[in-house]
Amino acid sequence: MIRIGVLGCGNVGAPLVQLIEAQAPAIEARTGLRLEVATVAVRNLSKDRGIPLPEGLLTRDAHAVVSDPSIDVVVEVIGGIEPARELITTALANGKPVVTGNKELLANVGTELFAAADAAGVDLLFEASVAGGIPLMRALRESLRGEPITRVMGIVNGTTNFILTKMSEEGAEYMAALTEAQALGYAERDPTADVEGFDAGAKTAIIATIAFGAKVVAGDVYHEGISRITAADIAVARRLGYVVKLLGIAEQLPTGEVAVRVHPAMVPVTHPLASVRESYNAVFVEGRAVGSLMFYGRGAGGSPTASAVLGDVIDAAVNLSKGTHGAIGTFGKAVTLPIDETSAEYLLSLDVADKPGVLHAVTGVFARHGVSIRAAEQEGNAPDARLVFITHEAKESAVQATMRELRELDVVRNVGGLLRVIGA
Amino acid sequence: MIRIGVLGCGNVGAPLVQLIEAQAPAIEARTGLRLEVATVAVRNLSKDRGIPLPEGLLTRDAHAVVSDPSIDVVVEVIGGIEPARELITTALANGKPVVTGNKELLANVGTELFAAADAAGVDLLFEASVAGGIPLMRALRESLRGEPITRVMGIVNGTTNFILTKMSEEGAEYMAALTEAQALGYAERDPTADVEGFDAGAKTAIIATIAFGAKVVAGDVYHEGISRITAADIAVARRLGYVVKLLGIAEQLPTGEVAVRVHPAMVPVTHPLASVRESYNAVFVEGRAVGSLMFYGRGAGGSPTASAVLGDVIDAAVNLSKGTHGAIGTFGKAVTLPIDETSAEYLLSLDVADKPGVLHAVTGVFARHGVSIRAAEQEGNAPDARLVFITHEAKESAVQATMRELRELDVVRNVGGLLRVIGA
Repeated sequence: MIRIGVLGCGNVGAPLVQLIEAQAPAIEARTGLRLEVATVAVRNLSKDRGIPLPEGLLTRDAHAVVSDPSIDVVVEVIGGIEPARELITTALANGKPVVTGNKELLANVGTELFAAADAAGVDLLFEASVAGGIPLMRALRESLRGEPITRVMGIVNGTTNFILTKMSEEGAEYMAALTEAQALGYAERDPTADVEGFDAGAKTAIIATIAFGAKVVAGDVYHEGISRITAADIAVARRLGYVVKLLGIAEQLPTGEVAVRVHPAMVPVTHPLASVRESYNAVFVEGRAVGSLMFYGRGAGGSPTASAVLGDVIDAAVNLSKGTHGAIGTFGKAVTLPIDETSAEYLLSLDVADKPGVLHAVTGVFARHGVSIRAAEQEGNAPDARLVFITHEAKESAVQATMRELRELDVVRNVGGLLRVIGA
Repeated sequence: MIRIGVLGCGNVGAPLVQLIEAQAPAIEARTGLRLEVATVAVRNLSKDRGIPLPEGLLTRDAHAVVSDPSIDVVVEVIGGIEPARELITTALANGKPVVTGNKELLANVGTELFAAADAAGVDLLFEASVAGGIPLMRALRESLRGEPITRVMGIVNGTTNFILTKMSEEGAEYMAALTEAQALGYAERDPTADVEGFDAGAKTAIIATIAFGAKVVAGDVYHEGISRITAADIAVARRLGYVVKLLGIAEQLPTGEVAVRVHPAMVPVTHPLASVRESYNAVFVEGRAVGSLMFYGRGAGGSPTASAVLGDVIDAAVNLSKGTHGAIGTFGKAVTLPIDETSAEYLLSLDVADKPGVLHAVTGVFARHGVSIRAAEQEGNAPDARLVFITHEAKESAVQATMRELRELDVVRNVGGLLRVIGA
């Protein structure tokens, strides 16, 4: 019998309690261990949780849970940094394995918690912290421990993928798609964390840390969101054979540096990430031996996330029963490459006055900054036209300098969305 | 230091030896364990392996390897049932963890080997046996241990997926696509095992066993191949919004029965499996809590498969160093549902004489067998036409009886490919 103390009974905690109860017999048949939710700590005892809970299961005293000698495994699904950090640290110090789905915590103080778990000799498992129900963390931590991973690219935010899908498939403008996402509960009233890439940035930091074994925190991740992308940008990309996706990218460069960033990207329509629609998540992993892998599924939602938490709980329970635990390893500080130093192919679109000499003036700016043009096309005719350029691989700093100088040209009315192209 | 004995140095063994050598320092940094390939057993000592091998590494005596007290972990990449079975059984009995990629062996005597491993208290790991480099087995065995899985559907044979991709995207006929696959080394000279679904059937048996915890062997899996599919069938499917894929399907029914089968299926174009192209594999997992998951990657090839083997080797080495091992669990015999009892939506195409009363005669046959038609269309005109029907969900036995009777109708010249439709 494994007694589980759950901290939090919201979106993930409530379905987790139900799932454990429903699956306990099947899990016992497979592992010989009976899981039981012994206590659930909440802030408000009288709030309706939407599920039937046995009398006396709830408590307001989370600190008592992490110190209770009769609790074998602690699950933290409160979210946020405090009091989650303090509760987890206490549980670990008390020799209790901890399962958490807290991306904010891990993206900021993850390696500190990993060290605390290693020092205490217990498991700290966190599958649900990135990409919800998708078993990505276990794949990176265990299956791919020996794989020379070169790059991980993920659609790790369902809200923005839903918005981009609407814009791409229905031609919706950003604001209309956002409003629909809010109406469906996919986006929050203040959507900043999702649409500006903060959420994806935190997840990308965790991915980079685990994939490359080097400490990357949320603040290391350069991020651009999707709020300035227009239906016109997406239409141009589509005509050229690309789908626009918000990607979290973590790369290990041959120099040993790690590059981590979140930005909208043009993905070739035949690339597996291109067909990830609506609010689904997917993470594409490239390694020198394994080639390309992709992991696809529900990146959020109470029930899929609870499924990931349960997988970790079983792991912790099995390890506990054997007197062992999984080592996370140690993490040196990553040397991160500044965004200015990264390279990509870029798509730029410019609204210009349509008159003789404009293309010459514009291409001169590219040339001065050493940015080579792979393709150019003009839409529309005098008096106004739109020029779209795709560059050869170029350095971010050179492209940014090009854009700054283009904005100062008299003939340029507007410099539109900058999209980076992901190679096939 | 973990000394590894490798049995076999072919397509997988040779890249594995190289990968271990290249990655040993990184693996040691993460796990504290130094992996070393101590010996490699081969049949022919003088054959060129295409890689530099240290003097004295090769041996012809595989039996000595599995009995050598200085060998910590045994890797079996010979393939086939004997002598692999005997070597693995001996290694396990000698207390050595074994890593294998042998699908034929596992699909026939897997549960016998699992029991031998459990009795010996050592690991038997087999990630590479299904879907090559894709970390599917670990996800099913560990991450999803608590998940109520309802269905697993996989594109688990790269050869047939390559052929179907060529037929679908280039309009190639089956024989032309097969010839191209053979020229590229994707298909063998005798392609039977791939194109008639035997290979996919063996993998589906392993998937069903692990996903549902019940013993399913290759012989339990109903299979149809792709050799009778025509470019016309694929074109009809595409016009109706479907892509044709060869799927291995394992379902757990509410009655507790397991249904396992391999057949070509019409997958909606928006389904994630539809965009799995060329020789890639992907496995789609459905669970009541987690929703839909998909795992995508290289299902074959020496280097991706070696990567999966290496992941298992590290796992076995870490467990060995801690004096523990992963339990596989016990497996009762599955109650498998005969194919006649399964249900699906079906697409049937008939070449008929185009004259009055034909549609009436044909639909009468459907009606007599209780098969309800969801959509019908006619291509071509007198004297010959092709009728295409999609049924509502119907029982396999009723559809087979319908086809038998249709073949006997005077006005029916040919009953073409039967394709089952997979729900979105």
